[in-house]
Amino acid sequence: MKPLILISNDDGYKAKGINSLIEMVRPLGRIVVCAPDGPRSGSACAFSATTPLTLTLRRKEEDLEVWSCNGTPVDCVKMALANICERKPDLVIGGINHGDNASVNTHYSGTMGVTMEGCMKYIPSIAYSLCDYSADADFSPMAPYVRQMTERVLREGLPQGVCLNINFPDPSNLPCLGEASVTPPKQGETEGVFKGVKVCRMAHGTWFNETKKCSHPRGYDYWWMVGSYNNDEPDAEDTDNWALQHGFIAITPTRVDVTAYEAMEQFKRWETTLNSNL
Amino acid sequence: MKPLILISNDDGYKAKGINSLIEMVRPLGRIVVCAPDGPRSGSACAFSATTPLTLTLRRKEEDLEVWSCNGTPVDCVKMALANICERKPDLVIGGINHGDNASVNTHYSGTMGVTMEGCMKYIPSIAYSLCDYSADADFSPMAPYVRQMTERVLREGLPQGVCLNINFPDPSNLPCLGEASVTPPKQGETEGVFKGVKVCRMAHGTWFNETKKCSHPRGYDYWWMVGSYNNDEPDAEDTDNWALQHGFIAITPTRVDVTAYEAMEQFKRWETTLNSNL
Repeated sequence: MKPLILISNDDGYKAKGINSLIEMVRPLGRIVVCAPDGPRSGSACAFSATTPLTLTLRRKEEDLEVWSCNGTPVDCVKMALANICERKPDLVIGGINHGDNASVNTHYSGTMGVTMEGCMKYIPSIAYSLCDYSADADFSPMAPYVRQMTERVLREGLPQGVCLNINFPDPSNLPCLGEASVTPPKQGETEGVFKGVKVCRMAHGTWFNETKKCSHPRGYDYWWMVGSYNNDEPDAEDTDNWALQHGFIAITPTRVDVTAYEAMEQFKRWETTLNSNL
Repeated sequence: MKPLILISNDDGYKAKGINSLIEMVRPLGRIVVCAPDGPRSGSACAFSATTPLTLTLRRKEEDLEVWSCNGTPVDCVKMALANICERKPDLVIGGINHGDNASVNTHYSGTMGVTMEGCMKYIPSIAYSLCDYSADADFSPMAPYVRQMTERVLREGLPQGVCLNINFPDPSNLPCLGEASVTPPKQGETEGVFKGVKVCRMAHGTWFNETKKCSHPRGYDYWWMVGSYNNDEPDAEDTDNWALQHGFIAITPTRVDVTAYEAMEQFKRWETTLNSNL
């Protein structure tokens, strides 16, 4: 039986990124796509608690079905698992995202929402992103890596509760630090397509100047969410930001369990002091 | 100078939970509230990438301002930090949520979105939730705990990158396993209000039967997101689900850094094998 691969994203089913991904992984199994009917960037793990959801079949070929859904990326995964897939998929893939999902963007990303949702359902799950926000980004240099990584996860699985957040640099536009990055690449850093693969941790970084005030013709203020990103530990060579800035593909193993185990001991005191005072 | 406390939630600024919280913590400092203008359950860390945001002042008293925003819980925090707070707050609080945010609900919760956003901005941050989804839930038994916990975090701070996800059981309706829970409480478990405080890890649990198909009068199908929750490790006494089911207040220290450090070694092999094959 061919592996069943469920694909979704947050840029919508028409995006070049998801359609590039479909072509890259089609040889590996039967593909079910259920993706938002339009852009849903910044959807994180949100689901639609109060909106009715609909499904529309957009394309049906041998071993490929493409559906759109009016909900969030996580809605798409839940809807596909419950109502489209004939069995539990062997793999869930989010992407390919137009733009990076490194550092704290992990938490905002709808692509990572797809991947976390798959992981929460105990399905091996991967997110692929490219540090290029343009609608016509060139995803083709990723193809041999995506195919090999996807095959490997299909073959070997992933540890339970762990998914992969894989970000590809845009070697023609280093460093890869969020949409607002303007620093030009250093001499020599754009040579070759990808420098290689690095297994990373999430960098600590901060978004700032996140709101832009505008004035409505009727006289009231409104704001757009924008922002610039700062890598708060630019010299940390073990981070995803560093890898991307230096032309490497960043693989960040990512957990569903967000417990801060290392901090538990310090709060254990609360058990006795709070209990006895109240 | 009085501590500055920023409060938001995902049930909206009119909800009983947030208004109960305001009264509980008012004695502790100057309070700025910026909360959604209506319910936003299931918003996770989503922000509004494509919708213009507006702010409306709803209430202004000595050391208290209440604003509403048309965005997500995370939008509310970002908007308040950039456009309402006169300085960086000393504390961000999400809640009090109507319903629990334990186990995997951590990832879907807009209340936790508020708290993660505060934590990503290096501000000590807490989420408070009560295992009672009703609009007129009684939050008053939480008051002495909330006050003491909030004071303690104001005084001692929190480790960088760690926030607190604090869930209170509803002792009159144990066990506290998601909205769909129907199992009656065991004899004796409803005695007393809270059994005490337990520092916990996130339980592994799974939502199932998450979509409910309905038929539109015009003949097409649509779905509502619903679901039942299963605790996949019901005997694990160190989990938030176990604590809540047994009448304890569950404190789960929660991390912004979701790197699966324990899994990194296993993927290090990818660095060499992928690099050399391509």
